Amino acid sequence: MSILLDNISIIPMTAENLVIEKGYLVIEDNLIKEIGEGSSPGSGYDKIIDGTNRVVIPGLINTHTHAAMTLLRGYADDLPLMEWLETKIWPLEAKLTSEDIYWGTMLAIVEMLKSGTTTFTDMYFSMDRVARAVEESGIRGVLARGMIGVGPENERAIDDSRDLVAKWHKKAGERITFMLGPHAPYTCPPEYLKRVADLAGELGVGIHIHVAETRGEFEDTLKQYAKTPVAHLENLGLFEHKVVAAHCVHVDNQDMQILKKYNVGVAHNPESNMKLASGIAPVPEMLKSGIPVALGTDGASSNNDLDMIHEMRSCAFLHKVSTMDPTAVPAYKALEMATVNGGKALDLDKEIGILKPGYKADMVIINLEKAHMTPRYDLLANIVYAAQASDVETVIIDGRIVMENRIIKTLDEQEVLIKARETAARLVK
Amino acid sequence: MSILLDNISIIPMTAENLVIEKGYLVIEDNLIKEIGEGSSPGSGYDKIIDGTNRVVIPGLINTHTHAAMTLLRGYADDLPLMEWLETKIWPLEAKLTSEDIYWGTMLAIVEMLKSGTTTFTDMYFSMDRVARAVEESGIRGVLARGMIGVGPENERAIDDSRDLVAKWHKKAGERITFMLGPHAPYTCPPEYLKRVADLAGELGVGIHIHVAETRGEFEDTLKQYAKTPVAHLENLGLFEHKVVAAHCVHVDNQDMQILKKYNVGVAHNPESNMKLASGIAPVPEMLKSGIPVALGTDGASSNNDLDMIHEMRSCAFLHKVSTMDPTAVPAYKALEMATVNGGKALDLDKEIGILKPGYKADMVIINLEKAHMTPRYDLLANIVYAAQASDVETVIIDGRIVMENRIIKTLDEQEVLIKARETAARLVK
Repeated sequence: MSILLDNISIIPMTAENLVIEKGYLVIEDNLIKEIGEGSSPGSGYDKIIDGTNRVVIPGLINTHTHAAMTLLRGYADDLPLMEWLETKIWPLEAKLTSEDIYWGTMLAIVEMLKSGTTTFTDMYFSMDRVARAVEESGIRGVLARGMIGVGPENERAIDDSRDLVAKWHKKAGERITFMLGPHAPYTCPPEYLKRVADLAGELGVGIHIHVAETRGEFEDTLKQYAKTPVAHLENLGLFEHKVVAAHCVHVDNQDMQILKKYNVGVAHNPESNMKLASGIAPVPEMLKSGIPVALGTDGASSNNDLDMIHEMRSCAFLHKVSTMDPTAVPAYKALEMATVNGGKALDLDKEIGILKPGYKADMVIINLEKAHMTPRYDLLANIVYAAQASDVETVIIDGRIVMENRIIKTLDEQEVLIKARETAARLVK
Repeated sequence: MSILLDNISIIPMTAENLVIEKGYLVIEDNLIKEIGEGSSPGSGYDKIIDGTNRVVIPGLINTHTHAAMTLLRGYADDLPLMEWLETKIWPLEAKLTSEDIYWGTMLAIVEMLKSGTTTFTDMYFSMDRVARAVEESGIRGVLARGMIGVGPENERAIDDSRDLVAKWHKKAGERITFMLGPHAPYTCPPEYLKRVADLAGELGVGIHIHVAETRGEFEDTLKQYAKTPVAHLENLGLFEHKVVAAHCVHVDNQDMQILKKYNVGVAHNPESNMKLASGIAPVPEMLKSGIPVALGTDGASSNNDLDMIHEMRSCAFLHKVSTMDPTAVPAYKALEMATVNGGKALDLDKEIGILKPGYKADMVIINLEKAHMTPRYDLLANIVYAAQASDVETVIIDGRIVMENRIIKTLDEQEVLIKARETAARLVK
């Protein structure tokens, strides 16, 4: 199958601020074959998409979410963190069946595709069903079964993870990558984290973990282990493996040196950190020191959407005001975090995150014929500071047109909405 | 003309967290006639809109923008403030003709209608053409001709304002309100501001002014007048009149007492303040002290959109994280700022901002059949934290259906986009 995107603007994310105002892009099977300026070459493509007044960018990479938590969207808001978790989120989560998690994940996938996300990084439960949703929907997923290192579940989490890796890692046409998902330093004792690290080495997979999300966690870890959360994890050998560290809000200079030394991928979740009042991560400093800081939405109950365009914008705006520097996190940098750095954070930067021949054909076509995208002096600024999810018109993942003119072709969107509503009604009954 | 909205959810904004899950709303001519729960009464309506899976809210009120600056959207971003103004914004603005400003305002109106704004508060130039755009498009506008109190323009600004008030104040079916628009304390000397205050009294109109936007302005005013910007304006008698004070980022406790004492309407612009790194206004404190704090987008060159749904969300998120309190500015409060408080800030709270019999029929119907609005545990949270501009389906202003199923009925959207593109091309030639 070959696809030609013709007469299209291209932001390949291969060089700072590079915009090909009018060019073409050729896809063959699941890979990008050719990109060029001006008129398209040859003929005989199976499919031609006219890109007039359109721009194509690499698919957005969400490096931290809990997809099925869409089922909890709006269930509990504007509450203090622990009250929110203990009286609202956890009791409802305890009712979720694996069937619910399948439909909640499907709901998340619909929302993500419709806002330009082509890869998501999930930590949750019933991950066999999540993998099935990824396989069926055509999206790319980096999946981890959440592991709590205390209580009766801890052994099962290890067994499950081992089974899931055997069954799903690099399956579904390599669209699925599995990782291990120890929840956080404060829910996983040191011995357990060491076992997880060993298992990651044995299985050859990465680790996805929450790190230093709140001030309380930072202080408690310091009290309990005489180390910051980041230093504590270094000490346990976790960073000898590929790690995606979600949040990293409360990190000091020494922590940043550690993150840089081990090339830890940081999944920055600005909107969740704002909404839950977790704090402001030192993103400009982390970027400056060369840490691959990527973006994530976190779950829908703390955001409340999975919209990576929102996330880029909030990231840029938050760090401009928090540093009182309007040049902090410019538009290109925010888009880089959502694409290139996503690839780096997930150790998939040889496959996704940029538009370049030989890379996986994961990309998003944005419609520019909108009042809020007019005029077009600067496509990068328009995309990061003015675009809306609904401008995402067509989504291609692994060379397959998963959404075209806002119609998702791999699943029945109406059925997903109905199932999600039914599930929500049952959960609060 | 009578319109029935049937089988619809209603958020009237008349009582905290009040949501009518299923009800009806009757419009007669330009006013709301009846609102109720359950099934609709009677028959014989000229038009019936089925509100199944829809919610109606009061039209959003943008209390501070420079509409025609849509023509500068994305022209200059990620620069230090003075470099941005002096080398980019001002030189391009100097090229704008009144014809350009008309089309730039029309572009803004398209964007505002399509994101649920029914009233906007503008400070700019060529306001006769802006008034014409308001008249033609059917939107509601509170307009002020920008007045710079130094240089040759200062007398003309006063003459113009007098003429504009005579010609347009409470015209276009009362959809147009005029105010005086002295730009800021630092561009208008004390004597000039006193003349403006006197003129406001003479003409019986309000005043729209930028106040305490940056730290530099705060410090300079303190140095020059031994008063904060707010105290300086009080001293000049400005607050004896109805004032909409845009920004109020740098205000101290005494300033807040002054703002409260005179019931000054504060137009808070969180996204502009973030993007330009102006600072974080003490919004929770201002709200607590009873100041009518409303929301604005500021101009498109510092935002870069005119999307009030974005603005509500950014407002809530920014103040949660800046106070480290996840209960700060909850969803209802953010929506109240964008509606009720908008009415109060503009001294139009007897006419707009809530859905209640006798009020002007300004309202917005939001489509809930979207993945990102599913499930629906809490309509308020969904609207403020998850809704997108493109969920706004139908807009009614002064009893007239201005947009229906996302088609604007009062103007030719394609023509506006074409004119705006042509203008932008000429400006940078």
